[in-house]
Amino acid sequence: MQPILSDGYSIYFNSDSYIKMNEYLLEHKPTKLFILVDQNTHELCYPKFIQLLEITATIEVIEIEAGEKHKNIETCISLWNILTELGADRKSLMINLGGGVITDMGGFVASTFKRGIKFINIPTTLLSMVDASAGGKTGVDLGVLKNQIGLFSNPEMVLIDSKYLTTISEREIRSGMAEIIKYGLTYDVKVWDESKVFNSLENIDIDSLIHRSISIKNEVVIKDPKENGVRKILNFGHTLGHAIESYHLESKDKENLTHGEAIAIGMITETYISSKLYNFPKEILEEIKGKIVSLFGKVQIEQTDYAPIIDLLKHDKKNTNGNVNFVLLSNLEKVKFDCQVSEDLIIESLDYYQS
Amino acid sequence: MQPILSDGYSIYFNSDSYIKMNEYLLEHKPTKLFILVDQNTHELCYPKFIQLLEITATIEVIEIEAGEKHKNIETCISLWNILTELGADRKSLMINLGGGVITDMGGFVASTFKRGIKFINIPTTLLSMVDASAGGKTGVDLGVLKNQIGLFSNPEMVLIDSKYLTTISEREIRSGMAEIIKYGLTYDVKVWDESKVFNSLENIDIDSLIHRSISIKNEVVIKDPKENGVRKILNFGHTLGHAIESYHLESKDKENLTHGEAIAIGMITETYISSKLYNFPKEILEEIKGKIVSLFGKVQIEQTDYAPIIDLLKHDKKNTNGNVNFVLLSNLEKVKFDCQVSEDLIIESLDYYQS
Repeated sequence: MQPILSDGYSIYFNSDSYIKMNEYLLEHKPTKLFILVDQNTHELCYPKFIQLLEITATIEVIEIEAGEKHKNIETCISLWNILTELGADRKSLMINLGGGVITDMGGFVASTFKRGIKFINIPTTLLSMVDASAGGKTGVDLGVLKNQIGLFSNPEMVLIDSKYLTTISEREIRSGMAEIIKYGLTYDVKVWDESKVFNSLENIDIDSLIHRSISIKNEVVIKDPKENGVRKILNFGHTLGHAIESYHLESKDKENLTHGEAIAIGMITETYISSKLYNFPKEILEEIKGKIVSLFGKVQIEQTDYAPIIDLLKHDKKNTNGNVNFVLLSNLEKVKFDCQVSEDLIIESLDYYQS
Repeated sequence: MQPILSDGYSIYFNSDSYIKMNEYLLEHKPTKLFILVDQNTHELCYPKFIQLLEITATIEVIEIEAGEKHKNIETCISLWNILTELGADRKSLMINLGGGVITDMGGFVASTFKRGIKFINIPTTLLSMVDASAGGKTGVDLGVLKNQIGLFSNPEMVLIDSKYLTTISEREIRSGMAEIIKYGLTYDVKVWDESKVFNSLENIDIDSLIHRSISIKNEVVIKDPKENGVRKILNFGHTLGHAIESYHLESKDKENLTHGEAIAIGMITETYISSKLYNFPKEILEEIKGKIVSLFGKVQIEQTDYAPIIDLLKHDKKNTNGNVNFVLLSNLEKVKFDCQVSEDLIIESLDYYQS
């Protein structure tokens, strides 16, 4: 598959990607290689990866605990200390092999260690492939606030190998599908049409959907690297989605949701709000709700959960002047930015989701 | 005085600077203003500053404890939490009013909060005026390792008002003079000649020395923003200097040194090493030692201190492949990069300093 040229670096696919990585290593000769993994990718992805890696420099593997709850500044402090102890210098290279936690946090740690060492991202989940390959966002959570601390910093290259998808659960595959659906609804209705037939990886051309999703994200972020305009479309479903995700993360009596499960709810509620404010077609709203609920099931959100979820909206990174800014749709592919929504309508949308 | 144009932003001087700041605020209309101070600048600089500030937006003052030992990631976590609680959004502006701890750490906190909010630096010490105005370095210490965590990020503008120098001690003035001397030795012998007559602020034209020092630093960092070449000259005196500074910071039975006191020792020892390896003229070496010791006094460094100081060199950010890279001089204004120095010669240079 064709590489995708992003902002000063390329995203390579499947077997081609290892050739490009080895060429890079031969040319740049990093003094040391640090491979960041979690216990899952250490066990399931690293053995495949290391076989294809050609380098004579010292390799150090750094393993962290899997899971969003470890994506915080305390883990970063451990990583900065480990890099220091292992003698990382400015010409060291970090390879982030894992899901979004690994690529977001690894990118942040590398970009801030000694004011920045270079890094390569190898996303191993569907979500991180389609969501984190382009755009240069790195970061960690602050308490329950997702990606509150971070910066824009681009990797040297991104390697996408869809074989790594065999190492993750169906639930994680669905989490990535939610982002693919978002690209469909906001940018390319063909992607939405293809997503509708999704049931498992077997009945779709996942390589093509990944490539198209990354191309869309890349087009958007290159037009608007710092999220002043069109890039905001990527936040569709994410305003309420992030608040619901954070709420489940901080509530002791709630199961954590995957990112996809949370933004699935966000997409249904925000499409509902769109239908009220911008006449988004009702029949497509129903179709979206039907498909998403069939894929993700329905999460029980009680009336008593509404207030704390709405409270969390106050911390959304898109907010300005104390206003919560929603991204809404007047139709498929027709996006409205910086929309203000009344609390009553937010509550109504959560009721609609539950109905 | 003429503004200095740096990498996409300007450095303004004295009364002119407040006019430019107010123009900026009028044009950019930040949603909120966060002014970072320590207890000293809160008491001594803030009252003057606030009188000259023209803005209708909400102003929040955030005070941290003064001192290098608070320049760490734990203070950053507090600051990120405070910004969150006070409702900082992406259109908020941070003004860092203080010495290097405030501008380095404030710049880092702003640049990583919600992936970056804008900031203005107002250095209030001589050291931060001549050292931190150009170059975009932000960061904090990790344990005893200085600026181990950070990134390159430019402020919107820098305001230099030499009246703030009346708020700092003579010891802090001398700390800044050490950096001015460094510019003299490595880049402009006229600055060295002017520095030689320094005794107190009264007997020199400090405005002119500050302006020239910032111009030099700016020329260097614009040529080499990421420190791959010529920018390394700024590290003269800093290899041993940083190690000695860190050692005094971590030793319970040693008094902390100011940055300038530490690099004063670094400049003497590294000029000695330069005389051995690159025939730096002996008489100028003696003159440098004489002037610096007369300004800074002599710090007692025992033979038993040598090993831990040399050990700390291993963590210098300029190191590559495990080698310590020194910046040396073959003469005034004649700089050599990436010089390897034997442990014996380092010890000899420390002996020379003590002699």
